Amino acid sequence: MEFSSKLLENAVYEMSQLPGVGKRTALRLVLHLLKQPESQTGRLAQALKSLREEIKFCRNCHNISDVELCEICANPKRDSGLICVVEDIRDVMAIENTSQYNGLYHVLGGKISPMEGIGPQDLNIASLVEKVKKGEIRELIFAMSSTMEGDTTNFYIYKQIQDREVRTSTIARGIAVGDELEYADEITLGRSILHRIPFETSLKAD
Amino acid sequence: MEFSSKLLENAVYEMSQLPGVGKRTALRLVLHLLKQPESQTGRLAQALKSLREEIKFCRNCHNISDVELCEICANPKRDSGLICVVEDIRDVMAIENTSQYNGLYHVLGGKISPMEGIGPQDLNIASLVEKVKKGEIRELIFAMSSTMEGDTTNFYIYKQIQDREVRTSTIARGIAVGDELEYADEITLGRSILHRIPFETSLKAD
Repeated sequence: MEFSSKLLENAVYEMSQLPGVGKRTALRLVLHLLKQPESQTGRLAQALKSLREEIKFCRNCHNISDVELCEICANPKRDSGLICVVEDIRDVMAIENTSQYNGLYHVLGGKISPMEGIGPQDLNIASLVEKVKKGEIRELIFAMSSTMEGDTTNFYIYKQIQDREVRTSTIARGIAVGDELEYADEITLGRSILHRIPFETSLKAD
Repeated sequence: MEFSSKLLENAVYEMSQLPGVGKRTALRLVLHLLKQPESQTGRLAQALKSLREEIKFCRNCHNISDVELCEICANPKRDSGLICVVEDIRDVMAIENTSQYNGLYHVLGGKISPMEGIGPQDLNIASLVEKVKKGEIRELIFAMSSTMEGDTTNFYIYKQIQDREVRTSTIARGIAVGDELEYADEITLGRSILHRIPFETSLKAD
């Protein structure tokens, strides 16, 4: 692509560094900003800069936070003996949206992936093991995505803490609510039969 | 969506103001930036700010430019008697990429659209008419998209200059190179038969 302006070319290049944003999309976004009031671009630039420079991560659960200890960890009403291990802060937000969970979280910041060169030392695993060793944790819930990398990460953590007095569980895998059985993949369907639950329990779910 | 950080919420909100970027995508982009070196976010923010604050539009053709008169208009080798009327600077880039055109451009900055409240006074039409009235233009090529709004805009300009000594043309509509005939819509196919060209001419096209 040939640009008539270096400023434009530069903005498009930086925009196209975002994931899923190609050169054409970047150009469309940048031209859109040019048509909007100058203040909008200023606000976007400022918001990104402040975020990157001022953001903190909770010292307990590694969730994104504006303060040292995030709202969830600081809430005395939450069950601090129960920890849900997630990959990403997006998972925290997703689980929080369900309003079904009252424990704390531990954000690993990724999953073990030799293909991408991510090992246990790149994730917040040591601090989790430390927490467990202190003996204050009753149960760990593994809520990683059900992939090779997710399973590896779960197993790695499990190995580190298996001699400790802590219960471990994983979130249920099964047919999503509202899904048709015939379109489910056989692994999911198989697991949902193997790990079936008493009918009375399912009635109380909501 | 509930955010654990105001900074994050703010950045996601500003990002989601971009066209085609919803809240979820915005969150994904912002979290990606958080995982990258701080310098990347700084460069993006700076590039957007400089673009918005320092960008100029060519005083002759209204194309985006870093200087008063854009490279195309300033090039003495280009045919200044021939003007291609386009909607957007993206169209200039697209036509320049073909290397088939040696005239100048005139960027309208949009098309007449009563539905969106865009009238002729919102576009760079007056300066185009002015140029034509000076008598320096030999031919105007309308290269607007072939929609109701594009046709309206073409016709509006045509009406303003029809009593002047200037040739007007529109780009050819027809079956795209490489397309199968059977999948073409009937309007395009109909036009491509009506406006057929001598076979010898097509041989010289490239």
